[in-house]
Amino acid sequence: MGFTEDPDYPQIIVQYSSGFLVSKVMFTACELGVFDLLLESGEPLSSDSVAACLGTSTTGMERLLDACVGLKLLAVEMTQEGALYRNTEISNIYLTKSSPKSQYHMMMYYSNTVYLCWQHLAEAVREGRNQYERTFGISSKDPFGAMYRSEEEMLKFMAGQNSVWSICGRDVLAAFDLSSFTQIYDLGGGGGALARECVSLYPNSTVTIYDLPKVVQVAKEQFVSPEERQITFHEGDFFNDSIPEAELYILSKILHDWDDNKCKQLLAKVYKACKPG
Amino acid sequence: MGFTEDPDYPQIIVQYSSGFLVSKVMFTACELGVFDLLLESGEPLSSDSVAACLGTSTTGMERLLDACVGLKLLAVEMTQEGALYRNTEISNIYLTKSSPKSQYHMMMYYSNTVYLCWQHLAEAVREGRNQYERTFGISSKDPFGAMYRSEEEMLKFMAGQNSVWSICGRDVLAAFDLSSFTQIYDLGGGGGALARECVSLYPNSTVTIYDLPKVVQVAKEQFVSPEERQITFHEGDFFNDSIPEAELYILSKILHDWDDNKCKQLLAKVYKACKPG
Repeated sequence: MGFTEDPDYPQIIVQYSSGFLVSKVMFTACELGVFDLLLESGEPLSSDSVAACLGTSTTGMERLLDACVGLKLLAVEMTQEGALYRNTEISNIYLTKSSPKSQYHMMMYYSNTVYLCWQHLAEAVREGRNQYERTFGISSKDPFGAMYRSEEEMLKFMAGQNSVWSICGRDVLAAFDLSSFTQIYDLGGGGGALARECVSLYPNSTVTIYDLPKVVQVAKEQFVSPEERQITFHEGDFFNDSIPEAELYILSKILHDWDDNKCKQLLAKVYKACKPG
Repeated sequence: MGFTEDPDYPQIIVQYSSGFLVSKVMFTACELGVFDLLLESGEPLSSDSVAACLGTSTTGMERLLDACVGLKLLAVEMTQEGALYRNTEISNIYLTKSSPKSQYHMMMYYSNTVYLCWQHLAEAVREGRNQYERTFGISSKDPFGAMYRSEEEMLKFMAGQNSVWSICGRDVLAAFDLSSFTQIYDLGGGGGALARECVSLYPNSTVTIYDLPKVVQVAKEQFVSPEERQITFHEGDFFNDSIPEAELYILSKILHDWDDNKCKQLLAKVYKACKPG
């Protein structure tokens, strides 16, 4: 990162400036199904073949594929018939829809929701509030009122969160030995991917996902099968409704959504509900 | 970058996903004038002071400043009165408006024009064309018809290009010894920052900026003073009009705007016009 030593070339400034271009190249290749096609084809393809299969322009696709090569998301080999592209290992694992560790849903949520809201970051800082109204015309004090504005949006968000947990959930849960806790509440546990990692890592535990009724309903329908008996549900709003007693509470990706006062209020409530030990 | 060795944690995927967040944090701190204020104040300021001076919310500003600290664009020290923020060396040089190497105009062009167009990258690849129409309602086959849709937009673009040259123009021009060339044309030379670097590095040279009449007019009014006698102008469209004879032609950030056929056409024309040697 030698930028403190060499202020003559501002490497990080140039890198940060291109950050959004890099994000969008990866998101777009995901969205168009480039990585899925290259996985299914089982052999390297020319940019013309990829363009034909995915119904895109040839010039646009060639540029997109070359940008992915630059980012090491694709590999290219030059043959007598021209350039042939294939997935890298990391793309097969994380950027194809069918992989168990697929980040596809997270990418789509970032690309088509978060990217748009962040266009208004300056206004967000000026006003001190989220920009769903300016971005999507949805007036809401509570970010989740906006994020869960339709079942479709809620599904996209839950699937996105689940894909993040498929990468790092296990590491987070294994960072401390939690095997002595059998009765666990995951507050705002959403689509249940973290709960699933938890019961798999700690087979004696039961994890109750505490979330809004409409979230619980979608989680049951779409993400958690009734056969996963160690995962149960509790419908409620953890700010307004009571929090049942348990041995351990998970608050993961929750506190960053709220201001300090609401966080203090929630943590005090959890402290009161938690069994000693 | 150990991602080929450790596919279990996809560092680059996580990094690329956050690219647009990083860009927008830097762009927004520039836009709101954070770096200018911290330069002018001459002493570290609290986030509340920065918010008050710039007329923003306190919570929003605190988060923005902390994000800038994470990106090493600001430094923070904890004092008895709380956290105090100051510019890093690189921010003073590149992110303040008044610095000769300021990248402010480039940031604003990226943040408020390019970021928006790139929301439609998937459509751009499908259709094989630029997305100014979808983004700004401007129908144009030629990207410059869209980019130069108003004098204000043209000014922003030219100022942005100039700021990029203030970083790397000299290095590019010094990469080869060009001192034997005295008669140089900079095709599409725009705001003239590269021409200025050229005549400063090679005092015997004269650089003629060849650009569209409206660009030349703005360059003369805003960017190049009549006292810079080694810089002259030629008004025209280098695809449709003739290119005068010269010893050396600069085509910098030109070819990437056009398809292969137009590039071949332009290069052939330059080849024909160029003096032997």
